[in-house]
Amino acid sequence: MPRIDPERLLADLEHLRSFGARGTGVVRQSLSEVDMASRHWLCERLREAGLEPLVDGVGNVIGRSPNPGKALLLGSHSDTQPTGGWLDGALGVIYGLEVARALGEDHATRGFTIDVAAWIDEEGTYIGMLGSRSFCGDITPDAIDAARARNGRPLREALGEAGVAGRPAARLDAARYAGYLEAHIEQGPWLEAEGKRIGVVTAIIGMRDFFIHFEGEQNHAGTTPMAMRKDAGAALIEFAHRVQCEFPALAGERTVWTIGSVTFEPGAPSIIPGRARMLLQFRDPDETLLDTLEDDIRRLIDEANAAGPVHVRMELRDNSAVATPMDSDLQAHIARAAERHAAGQWVRMPSGAAHDAQTLARCMPAAMLFVPSINGVSHSFAEDTRREDIVLGCQVLASAAATILQKQAQ
Amino acid sequence: MPRIDPERLLADLEHLRSFGARGTGVVRQSLSEVDMASRHWLCERLREAGLEPLVDGVGNVIGRSPNPGKALLLGSHSDTQPTGGWLDGALGVIYGLEVARALGEDHATRGFTIDVAAWIDEEGTYIGMLGSRSFCGDITPDAIDAARARNGRPLREALGEAGVAGRPAARLDAARYAGYLEAHIEQGPWLEAEGKRIGVVTAIIGMRDFFIHFEGEQNHAGTTPMAMRKDAGAALIEFAHRVQCEFPALAGERTVWTIGSVTFEPGAPSIIPGRARMLLQFRDPDETLLDTLEDDIRRLIDEANAAGPVHVRMELRDNSAVATPMDSDLQAHIARAAERHAAGQWVRMPSGAAHDAQTLARCMPAAMLFVPSINGVSHSFAEDTRREDIVLGCQVLASAAATILQKQAQ
Repeated sequence: MPRIDPERLLADLEHLRSFGARGTGVVRQSLSEVDMASRHWLCERLREAGLEPLVDGVGNVIGRSPNPGKALLLGSHSDTQPTGGWLDGALGVIYGLEVARALGEDHATRGFTIDVAAWIDEEGTYIGMLGSRSFCGDITPDAIDAARARNGRPLREALGEAGVAGRPAARLDAARYAGYLEAHIEQGPWLEAEGKRIGVVTAIIGMRDFFIHFEGEQNHAGTTPMAMRKDAGAALIEFAHRVQCEFPALAGERTVWTIGSVTFEPGAPSIIPGRARMLLQFRDPDETLLDTLEDDIRRLIDEANAAGPVHVRMELRDNSAVATPMDSDLQAHIARAAERHAAGQWVRMPSGAAHDAQTLARCMPAAMLFVPSINGVSHSFAEDTRREDIVLGCQVLASAAATILQKQAQ
Repeated sequence: MPRIDPERLLADLEHLRSFGARGTGVVRQSLSEVDMASRHWLCERLREAGLEPLVDGVGNVIGRSPNPGKALLLGSHSDTQPTGGWLDGALGVIYGLEVARALGEDHATRGFTIDVAAWIDEEGTYIGMLGSRSFCGDITPDAIDAARARNGRPLREALGEAGVAGRPAARLDAARYAGYLEAHIEQGPWLEAEGKRIGVVTAIIGMRDFFIHFEGEQNHAGTTPMAMRKDAGAALIEFAHRVQCEFPALAGERTVWTIGSVTFEPGAPSIIPGRARMLLQFRDPDETLLDTLEDDIRRLIDEANAAGPVHVRMELRDNSAVATPMDSDLQAHIARAAERHAAGQWVRMPSGAAHDAQTLARCMPAAMLFVPSINGVSHSFAEDTRREDIVLGCQVLASAAATILQKQAQ
């Protein structure tokens, strides 16, 4: 079995962290100067590992193995949130590099074919999961033309300044790959709470994201009697309260729901809100349960409209995502590797967060491995993982990659 | 008894409307070019009526009678909301002009002393009730230095461009006045609903205006289990729901309460809100009832903090106002005049909206008269009042002014 090199792994993770480091955190948004510098650094490391690296037309780094035979694709994203942690995404990218090196150094696995990807813009500075979606042919040129960062900067301009405009976008060769493996920090508290060190991801949970709009009548807050009001804000409060009352009874163990934003218009102290809007999101690994929750919302809307006087309607946001089961065969390989290196210290679990593996799973078998997040914290400068867990996760990934490709070779 | 001239009254109201007219509405924010043009036009009308007009250092128009003896001050404001109606404030100003003319034309009342005021900025483009507060000595130069419009424009700059910077601010001479009368549109639906044409205002209701702050913990909306959340937004929803459940049982006939604004931070679909804030306002003519409502809020906050996990606190906004009873003797004069001109068609009622009379009532006896608002609409281009009600209201005010000054002369 190939052995990873813990010191080399941790040194490369620390080196990647230095691109955009801010105290314990990292600011390395996709296509920024530090992001591109880190990508060119990564290309050199991939070349040293014997892979053929390229930066493609959207900024993806892909290191291809020159070996023949079915390949395994390993990777994650290396861009960060506006105020990001040092491991989110970076961990899975450096794991890919280290696993390619470890297999290349073991005589039994040195002929195996490992490709490594560092996807661009998983965090959605321009388009969420831009890199993996581009690789899978799921982004049109029109979408790239239209995309802008929140500060108004066009994606096309960022691609130009990053020096990749005009390059071809790397496209999936489906025949090449046996599958995709992505390692990631958990970004939640479950592993820590259960005292486990490895999560074998069963599914990436589906997400439904709705605007719910309330339309009443704006009026003077001093002179309009309570009985004559059509208060859109008051209607929203009652609606949200009913959601909070009803969802717990319908929810599964892993269901989460969030009202992330509420706005009242015009939003003045002495004016009865004429319009109000809330953002409601719910997530679960089971699409049937998501249907149940959506049906409940529709019933609450029907009841609110029947009762009046404020009109309520829902609008699906386009960033909703279908629940994505991970490939069971690849899961079994990861589970066996986890049991070998950390017997009894691993658990099967869904992913509550979205990942590039969701996109890849539409094109090839895909699976994920989690390591614990200290205090469940991510998307924050405080994000961290114990070093022994970082090392363990990479060794589990290396062993799983080896057995997957061994089976392909048979 | 002096008789007002309905055609002259309506013609002057229409002329004032032409300053800033937009369709059926008016855009005449305080100290704007059209506002100042309307004030100079008003000065000319006051001069024709035999008064000595001035525009003071904050933009107030004050027309003083040259007659001796105790004076009655009549007026309102002539600035509008950003998208205002044609009568809000303007009505009471032109009533004052017409009453001064009508008394001046009647041999029995031509020696009576009527002053007319058109206050600046009741609507708070810079400082709510700036004009009447300045007149009553309730504004410091520091407050004027600091004041800015919502668009950032300093009040001092607006006063300079309006051509009044450096002029003295007119100040109340308490010994001069027997009282202040203000006529206004009701801005609510009560008169229309009860089939009445004149409201004799008993009190201007008190208003308490609070921010309620919720502080929880921002976190990932996908990976944070429901049981581990400190969701400031969810806490706000439950708090607001309890307010909406409890207030109806505590409220009086005229109590109103409004949650005019809600904000969740950071306000993103996939982030659990770490902070949330609501604006809660309640109004009633009775300070004791306002105390009861405030006590209820304090109890709800204590309960929420005891239950956790989100911390809740309240903060009084500085635009809260004490309930202000109107002078009972002046009320009686208005009531007798109403009964004379519209027997059985008038009613005593509190004012749900704030008015300059609130400020003046702290310095001299003050009272108000309402005419109906069609459909209860105000602060809107659709604001209107039936012409016969406009004429009736002015006649009632003229008769009340005459009997008040008659009594002073005895």
